Amino acid sequence: MPENRGVVYEGPGKVEVREVGYPDFELKDGPGVNPANVGRKLPHAAIIKTVATNICGSDQHMVRGRTTAPHGLVLGHEITGEVIETGPDVEYIKTGDLVSVPFNISCGRCRNCKARKTDICENVNPDRPGSAYGYVDMGGWVGGQADFALVPYADWNLLKFPDKDQAMEKMLDLAMLADIFPTGFHGCVSAGVQPGSTVYVAGAGPVGLAAAASAFLLGAAVVIVGDLNKQRLEQARSFGCETVDVSQGAPEDQIEQILGVPEVDCAVDAVGFEARGHGRDSGQEQPATVLNSLMGLTRAGGALGIPGLYVTGDPGAHDEAAKHGSLSLRLGLGWSKSLAFTTGQCPVMKYNRQLMMAILHDRVQIAKAVNATSIPLEMAPQGYHEFDEGAARKYVLDPHGMLTKAA
Amino acid sequence: MPENRGVVYEGPGKVEVREVGYPDFELKDGPGVNPANVGRKLPHAAIIKTVATNICGSDQHMVRGRTTAPHGLVLGHEITGEVIETGPDVEYIKTGDLVSVPFNISCGRCRNCKARKTDICENVNPDRPGSAYGYVDMGGWVGGQADFALVPYADWNLLKFPDKDQAMEKMLDLAMLADIFPTGFHGCVSAGVQPGSTVYVAGAGPVGLAAAASAFLLGAAVVIVGDLNKQRLEQARSFGCETVDVSQGAPEDQIEQILGVPEVDCAVDAVGFEARGHGRDSGQEQPATVLNSLMGLTRAGGALGIPGLYVTGDPGAHDEAAKHGSLSLRLGLGWSKSLAFTTGQCPVMKYNRQLMMAILHDRVQIAKAVNATSIPLEMAPQGYHEFDEGAARKYVLDPHGMLTKAA
Amino acid sequence: MPENRGVVYEGPGKVEVREVGYPDFELKDGPGVNPANVGRKLPHAAIIKTVATNICGSDQHMVRGRTTAPHGLVLGHEITGEVIETGPDVEYIKTGDLVSVPFNISCGRCRNCKARKTDICENVNPDRPGSAYGYVDMGGWVGGQADFALVPYADWNLLKFPDKDQAMEKMLDLAMLADIFPTGFHGCVSAGVQPGSTVYVAGAGPVGLAAAASAFLLGAAVVIVGDLNKQRLEQARSFGCETVDVSQGAPEDQIEQILGVPEVDCAVDAVGFEARGHGRDSGQEQPATVLNSLMGLTRAGGALGIPGLYVTGDPGAHDEAAKHGSLSLRLGLGWSKSLAFTTGQCPVMKYNRQLMMAILHDRVQIAKAVNATSIPLEMAPQGYHEFDEGAARKYVLDPHGMLTKAA
Amino acid sequence: MPENRGVVYEGPGKVEVREVGYPDFELKDGPGVNPANVGRKLPHAAIIKTVATNICGSDQHMVRGRTTAPHGLVLGHEITGEVIETGPDVEYIKTGDLVSVPFNISCGRCRNCKARKTDICENVNPDRPGSAYGYVDMGGWVGGQADFALVPYADWNLLKFPDKDQAMEKMLDLAMLADIFPTGFHGCVSAGVQPGSTVYVAGAGPVGLAAAASAFLLGAAVVIVGDLNKQRLEQARSFGCETVDVSQGAPEDQIEQILGVPEVDCAVDAVGFEARGHGRDSGQEQPATVLNSLMGLTRAGGALGIPGLYVTGDPGAHDEAAKHGSLSLRLGLGWSKSLAFTTGQCPVMKYNRQLMMAILHDRVQIAKAVNATSIPLEMAPQGYHEFDEGAARKYVLDPHGMLTKAA
Repeated sequence: MPENRGVVYEGPGKVEVREVGYPDFELKDGPGVNPANVGRKLPHAAIIKTVATNICGSDQHMVRGRTTAPHGLVLGHEITGEVIETGPDVEYIKTGDLVSVPFNISCGRCRNCKARKTDICENVNPDRPGSAYGYVDMGGWVGGQADFALVPYADWNLLKFPDKDQAMEKMLDLAMLADIFPTGFHGCVSAGVQPGSTVYVAGAGPVGLAAAASAFLLGAAVVIVGDLNKQRLEQARSFGCETVDVSQGAPEDQIEQILGVPEVDCAVDAVGFEARGHGRDSGQEQPATVLNSLMGLTRAGGALGIPGLYVTGDPGAHDEAAKHGSLSLRLGLGWSKSLAFTTGQCPVMKYNRQLMMAILHDRVQIAKAVNATSIPLEMAPQGYHEFDEGAARKYVLDPHGMLTKAA
Repeated sequence: MPENRGVVYEGPGKVEVREVGYPDFELKDGPGVNPANVGRKLPHAAIIKTVATNICGSDQHMVRGRTTAPHGLVLGHEITGEVIETGPDVEYIKTGDLVSVPFNISCGRCRNCKARKTDICENVNPDRPGSAYGYVDMGGWVGGQADFALVPYADWNLLKFPDKDQAMEKMLDLAMLADIFPTGFHGCVSAGVQPGSTVYVAGAGPVGLAAAASAFLLGAAVVIVGDLNKQRLEQARSFGCETVDVSQGAPEDQIEQILGVPEVDCAVDAVGFEARGHGRDSGQEQPATVLNSLMGLTRAGGALGIPGLYVTGDPGAHDEAAKHGSLSLRLGLGWSKSLAFTTGQCPVMKYNRQLMMAILHDRVQIAKAVNATSIPLEMAPQGYHEFDEGAARKYVLDPHGMLTKAA
Repeated sequence: MPENRGVVYEGPGKVEVREVGYPDFELKDGPGVNPANVGRKLPHAAIIKTVATNICGSDQHMVRGRTTAPHGLVLGHEITGEVIETGPDVEYIKTGDLVSVPFNISCGRCRNCKARKTDICENVNPDRPGSAYGYVDMGGWVGGQADFALVPYADWNLLKFPDKDQAMEKMLDLAMLADIFPTGFHGCVSAGVQPGSTVYVAGAGPVGLAAAASAFLLGAAVVIVGDLNKQRLEQARSFGCETVDVSQGAPEDQIEQILGVPEVDCAVDAVGFEARGHGRDSGQEQPATVLNSLMGLTRAGGALGIPGLYVTGDPGAHDEAAKHGSLSLRLGLGWSKSLAFTTGQCPVMKYNRQLMMAILHDRVQIAKAVNATSIPLEMAPQGYHEFDEGAARKYVLDPHGMLTKAA
Repeated sequence: MPENRGVVYEGPGKVEVREVGYPDFELKDGPGVNPANVGRKLPHAAIIKTVATNICGSDQHMVRGRTTAPHGLVLGHEITGEVIETGPDVEYIKTGDLVSVPFNISCGRCRNCKARKTDICENVNPDRPGSAYGYVDMGGWVGGQADFALVPYADWNLLKFPDKDQAMEKMLDLAMLADIFPTGFHGCVSAGVQPGSTVYVAGAGPVGLAAAASAFLLGAAVVIVGDLNKQRLEQARSFGCETVDVSQGAPEDQIEQILGVPEVDCAVDAVGFEARGHGRDSGQEQPATVLNSLMGLTRAGGALGIPGLYVTGDPGAHDEAAKHGSLSLRLGLGWSKSLAFTTGQCPVMKYNRQLMMAILHDRVQIAKAVNATSIPLEMAPQGYHEFDEGAARKYVLDPHGMLTKAA
């Protein structure tokens, strides 16, 4: 059995690359594995040789020590790779297929999966609907920032790229299909973005930039991205976005300078609960800032897509309510404007095939938009660090050097 | 010109019936009329002889003194009646037509009206999108709890009943088309109610009961209504609803007894900002109680329809945040369950024609469901009082004795 | 291994009940089995002890000799029963579960299944997307009018009833979930039926009656059913439908008498290609009659749901074009009225869970609406005969006497 | 009163530019005016100084003599211009506004308009729902290929450009908002085009090219346009479309060469009833060719948008059925693939605002895509002639030389 190096959480601010054990068609006990999942047989799984596996902002929540993630947790839920072995129940996915793995693990057999709501699959996480690889409190599925990864329900979960050579050429783009491109797209779709819409995206991290690229793909007339980080705003401008520097104050004024009116049709929250204040409060964490700001700047009758992560418990929060996931929201304002709000994780499978087509036919340059940057697996700790410092990059780990070779 | 008696707000807890002046095709100055609306010409209006005009829970917010409503404000936004005069621009509505008046005033000429969003018309309220008759901070359109009322943009706003005799026979049902039936229906539609859904409606006041009746009309399998008021719960049971007495504690347990699971597919908030706590907190106002409770009891992937009123300012609120319309919401919980939220007033015109058809063809008994009770106009003060005391009734004022005669 | 009696097609007008072999977890060669399907392993399948298995109008197309169905074909695609054995890949469905089997066979792993389009699964029929049990040119899956039946992809395909005792009490209703209730419902949904709609259903056979019952469940104001068969029209009237006797001429006049206008909002074609003419042409087969008639009687802006079967080849058709599935349609009329048309088989899985809920909570009496009548399996030939003669009944075969016992 | 020159139909193949009378706020008798419309008062109208007014393919149907259009009919329904006078009922549109006029005339006051179905307004055409300027059997509204035009229900119908200078710079693009851009877009929307879709557009005339440009705006991965006309195919390729030369045979083979599969997700019929055969039949008119071809080349579960015109009567048709608007359609094939079909005129108002935004913010180059070419009004006869000959141009008449000046 080949060696399998993985990125492991070892405490606040600390990740290591080390041997994590080769995948097996059974879910073994380990850090963070839900007891009810231990020993679960996985004849429907496939083992993936990881071609690209990205570092995600939500990994940072764990690594910053904001969660109860246990030491020893193998991280990573954005996996793209080649199938090298399939379990006996796998019928259509074949060894050699090059595939994208949706970050949400789902069974394809429960009520929610049958309704395309793979973000809240009922059969993979004993605690509550919904799961992901390498994530705290999600059932204990092993993370995929590793040489090899195991994907259950492979026929259901995997998206096969139609042509391997073509796919390898666009691998840095296709690697975004595992999470951030569909997630940003879902934010836009649930915000009602259509041809001609004006759109505000809060947050110029990778998900925000993916949302902005999605908005253009959906035909938006104007896409405005707001952040505190000048480098990330620069990145947003690189592909045609307008930008708002929220350290300069509430976004409405800057929006008015761009659009002539202080409001947009559609708004996307790509920040989530670790939001910081605007203007002079911009150093300080204020978890409700983004949502309240979006209620102000979205026109009456508009909608908010909220792919940014909000959590049920945040022990490190600054106020008591936020520790239990409660936020002080200007709902009266939102109600008076007849706003609609869509929350939750993106059901990746709903979108990944169509977004793959858009990539393969050069209709979107998602890797460029998010400044995808491949680094060797062993440089993961540095990637985590730079990303946490606010680098305007999406780090893609390249365990087998295949990205380097392809480029 | 005939006498025109109207129901007038004269201070907290006080309404009077007195002469209010016959309608004119111009918006005159008066209590609460926005200066920018004074003198506005209304050649597109119709004068309605009021056959039925209902007292609404949102009128109570004003009468309780929770708003800045000025003394002298003529109340009433749920108007049904006969057209007795039309302005020169009215082309299709004719004198003698029996009509329902949507409570939202809209122009039929702005971007939002063209998109069917008549709840946020841009041309009728100088302060912000959206307006209603007889309502504080809504532009100053004269209320319709009166013998006669004026309806602007009559061709656009009025829904004509196809047969006058048939309509008079079902007038108590048709009177619900002005507001609460579409409002309850909108709550259900935005909560995703479909054939076979399980539905929880918070609040057994008229809007809650209308939502429950709407849920049945939409084919819901089980409709559960929660309230503190035993009489209103009894009313809910009278047409097939299951009930939850929230004074006994959080609804989940009682829901589990009914459904076998502690959650529903769809939830409707028919309470709004004047909510009281559940269980032992049930005497106390807790404006976020209902929304937080619904996030708990709605299944992952479900939706919340929120027709219950939330306001941008509530000077009488118990805590500072609520005074400015901010609520402490368990958004982390809602997000982890991928819930969607739809807020705002119902765009009545989107639904009233189809609901009229359901009434005329005996597919719904909405008057019975909400216990519609007609009283003479002059008894309005008593109606307001009893309604405020929690009577399980929907009071319908009968200025011309036509309801009595029809019954 | 127990005996397994099945209903077998033995030539035009002829069906027999005889031993057909016990199901196996492999698709064996046999009459009508596609060579590419022979030997297919089915570790994901379940064996069902058939509690109820219905005769369908589309079975009649084969039995009448209108298709190329081979002699020896085991018929039946409307199966409800108890799981008695599961293959090694079945994880959530358990022995003892009482289940409904959607008539469309689907894999739960292809692009179309992932998009909820189980009517056009790409992996079960080597000839083209979509399959069904016991049906000509559908891949060769063995029919389920038998003591026992095999269902592939059991975790995906089967709908489990939550409570066995409760389900046995309503078994005659639940048996309709396999096909005609969702099929009629799909017709209504695709015709845009909503609360308050006026609906015309062409055809008072079981699918037409199921569509009519569905229209009521969806809140339709008026449901009108048209047919030539007086007994079936009587059946339609038994649950509140209005009726049109098309032997008396085109439906518009009779619709006008019912509604005051000669048109409806929504129309459902529950007849399909074996349609007969209206009025004086009513003895004669005219395959385009129903669609052309519906284009005339549907109001501008309306929609047609077309669950009635149209085929690519009909060797027994009266005119050359119809033999190749071409019909002379008044598309100019339809276009001038901006009509929309939805064709194809119902993706049962999209609807069966919600319709089960409506049955279990007594919101619809579907068995009564279609006059479901259980008969022993051995009486199947008589059931086929009577149904072909136009009996206003839906025949449900009861192989194990369990329906009789439950009733 | 200024002179008002207009383009007048004077018999098959013949149009003239001559004085047609200055517009009045009353609909006067004239060629083709429905008697019930004569004398209709129009206080809600606006008089437009025509800045751009386009020749449309559907005008050609009349000019070719395929309809019952009367001699003397003033043509033209694609109008853009400046408001120079408004009737007394016009409240929000002002003299000086630069506006786009949707080709469908609608009242904004009937059931259909309130449901956004302005293509089938019930109040403007005494014969049947729906109307247009300068069109046979549409009520008799005077055409707009003229110096000045009258637009009824101006507040409802007109789309105001937010900035006149900016609008004049993009006038050739904005002129496409009156008809072909929304019409092509509607075809795509009703065909289900989304990001990543593969799309086939039948017809490379202006509507087909507008559909292709719309498909890109909607994010389509691949847009394939089919036609017989090599010049028009060249035009399609100029903005990134793939092309199929249908004179070379049925499109499936060529599609397979482009996509690797012989089918697309979505298909748009931008040809209509004057279709010609494919391959060796390409010289011959075959009205059902396009629709039958699209049913073949659209993948199962796909949809057809049908903005191409089909008519209820076509006296010049080659076969008897087509004379009455009947076509021989392969519905059996379409049904077996579960296809959906949307027909009818585009409700322009549903889309024009958002498409205007896409133009103003440079998200689409619609004038370039359709090769919009402005010519003086007096050259209209030549424009008609060249267009009929198959020129790959969209002719835009420039009555006042304002387009020339702006360019």
